Amino acid sequence: MTETIELARKLIQIDSVTPDDKGCQDLIAYYLQSLGFKNEFMPFGEVSNLWSRLGENKPCLVFAGHTDVVPTGPESSWTHPPFAAHIDGDMLYGRGAADMKSSIACFMAACKRFLTNYPNPKGSIAFLITSDEEGPAVDGTVKVIEKLEEREEKFEYCLVGEPSSSKKLADSIKNGRRGSLSGALTVKGIQGHIAYPELADNPIHNLAPALEQLVQVQWDHGNEYFPPTSFQISNINGGTGATNVIPGEVTVLFNFRFSTEHTAESLQESVHAILDLYNIDYEIEWTLSGHPFITEADGDLIKAVNQSVKQRLGYEPKLSTGGGTSDGRFIAPTGAEVIELGPLNATIHKVDECVSVTDLNLLTDIYYDLLVDLIA
Amino acid sequence: MTETIELARKLIQIDSVTPDDKGCQDLIAYYLQSLGFKNEFMPFGEVSNLWSRLGENKPCLVFAGHTDVVPTGPESSWTHPPFAAHIDGDMLYGRGAADMKSSIACFMAACKRFLTNYPNPKGSIAFLITSDEEGPAVDGTVKVIEKLEEREEKFEYCLVGEPSSSKKLADSIKNGRRGSLSGALTVKGIQGHIAYPELADNPIHNLAPALEQLVQVQWDHGNEYFPPTSFQISNINGGTGATNVIPGEVTVLFNFRFSTEHTAESLQESVHAILDLYNIDYEIEWTLSGHPFITEADGDLIKAVNQSVKQRLGYEPKLSTGGGTSDGRFIAPTGAEVIELGPLNATIHKVDECVSVTDLNLLTDIYYDLLVDLIA
Ligand SMILES: [Zn+2]
Ligand SMILES: [Zn+2]
Repeated sequence: MTETIELARKLIQIDSVTPDDKGCQDLIAYYLQSLGFKNEFMPFGEVSNLWSRLGENKPCLVFAGHTDVVPTGPESSWTHPPFAAHIDGDMLYGRGAADMKSSIACFMAACKRFLTNYPNPKGSIAFLITSDEEGPAVDGTVKVIEKLEEREEKFEYCLVGEPSSSKKLADSIKNGRRGSLSGALTVKGIQGHIAYPELADNPIHNLAPALEQLVQVQWDHGNEYFPPTSFQISNINGGTGATNVIPGEVTVLFNFRFSTEHTAESLQESVHAILDLYNIDYEIEWTLSGHPFITEADGDLIKAVNQSVKQRLGYEPKLSTGGGTSDGRFIAPTGAEVIELGPLNATIHKVDECVSVTDLNLLTDIYYDLLVDLIA
Repeated sequence: MTETIELARKLIQIDSVTPDDKGCQDLIAYYLQSLGFKNEFMPFGEVSNLWSRLGENKPCLVFAGHTDVVPTGPESSWTHPPFAAHIDGDMLYGRGAADMKSSIACFMAACKRFLTNYPNPKGSIAFLITSDEEGPAVDGTVKVIEKLEEREEKFEYCLVGEPSSSKKLADSIKNGRRGSLSGALTVKGIQGHIAYPELADNPIHNLAPALEQLVQVQWDHGNEYFPPTSFQISNINGGTGATNVIPGEVTVLFNFRFSTEHTAESLQESVHAILDLYNIDYEIEWTLSGHPFITEADGDLIKAVNQSVKQRLGYEPKLSTGGGTSDGRFIAPTGAEVIELGPLNATIHKVDECVSVTDLNLLTDIYYDLLVDLIA
């Protein structure tokens, strides 16, 4: 069993359901300390965070990841116990196997090999590990970045170990993410009996034409990195349950996943412009979960990944900005080149989450190549 | 205290919250028996119904009413206890004072006076009293009418004692009611993560254009008796509560109050025609609460009411078909002339429900005039 697989199994065997780290970061810190890293624990609230760095010189490659995992659901549904880290054939099973304890293990093993072969690298290496990625993401990466910015600690490259691969290892890397902007729209009317509509003012009726327009808008056409901005309503609720009452208000929860063709501000303005066309008494509470970000394809980090994947696997990864948000959104504003490269995401958050042992060893090789290419 | 007020107080003092009659109908039956009526109790389920008739000849004037009342809400909010039947100045207070124990009392007292003055009337008189008007209205008037139809028992006139008056006694009588047709529309889509809208199918978005059209339609322009048909949405619900999930379905509850320019069938067809314009996977469950009905203004019953009100009060009642449904909808299909004439409705279903003692005595006079005019 390789160092990678041994480390991955140890991490998976800890049931660190978000936001409880349960000692994963101690294990990582102890290992990194033996390689010469300087550990700094940065707990916030009930969240454990670890910032561990080796060297102070430029450039610095940061590996970012999380030790927390999503709940298992009923353990009896699992073929192998979710915290057993059972290996069956080429597959390593367990909650966190793909998302994302294994990629932490890969980077740890890659660092050990790298430092054995290059004991005095010109650049530096760091780990940014949180236990709050699967939760509210309030006391995790975002707080560590704040602290680093405060003390003007810089880094040039950030490799987020999220499972970015789709069908084959490293067939896809994320070089950006769409922005995410949510709105809670409340339209007010006047409640009344359905037999006397002239005494009421039906907010659902008032909303209808604006709603129709909102779902028809083509917000933009995307660009070379981003698909078109998407507007989706997740919830609509109006009415008391009684069938003879015109409700006093209706609420609509919606979300934009938006490209760099838009900003949160431009979207907010557009929504208000549409609603203001109609005679609606409304309010919107906005929540911005993340600005869109992009790491250009001609930067050193993506070039190094392409070269390694091509050489090790014979193909070039596809760049993608699709999918949900990740902690990359908190790191990108520092100006670092940020990408996500990790194992296959087919089983994440599911029963029987698993990852290929072969893939993990290859991922360690790729991570090693990046260290050699960028830091050595 | 007049016979009317004594009877009204006795009825109000019984806390017959729907559907519990609590002996109101026994009291009425006992009184009517002493006047020569033949009582027939027709209980269905937990609902008490009384059919009481005097004479067998044509024409027959039926008084229709209900002994059940809506709940009082917190009794401490009432100025006078809701079942005390307290009289303060000219006002008689209590739950059911206006809706509609007092009008039952008025008709009882009117019958007594009428039979004293006209001991051998040419026509006949009947009471149709239920305890299920404020509830589901399933085991009440509709069942009694079924039974009468089965045995081919006919009547020509029906006076429903519902509080029809608006500002002054008998300023308004209902000579019909709009139809009421409800629909429960379910639009199905495909649930999915909001970050991957291409893998989902948002039913709220699919519904939006059809919804907009449904609320804009002018269904008809009404006619001499009816206001335009009204379409109102009472409830709309879609979404799991989670803000990152595109829901799998959305439901819309709506209701038509419709004029005789439409039928339930024509409305159903129109709604389907609109929804079928769009690419929507939907189902509708329809519930018809009542066909619209109308009693023509030139019938004997309305002529008699007009004459009495004009003579007693100096003005002519306005004909109206507005407001909610009433048990009139179950009686009109028999072919009888049906109107609603009762006290002021300003306080019905509210705290401090009350009615004017003067009005009740006048209402007894009017009911008496109708008996003389139509039955004597
Ligand atoms: Zn993750
Ligand atoms: Zn009533």
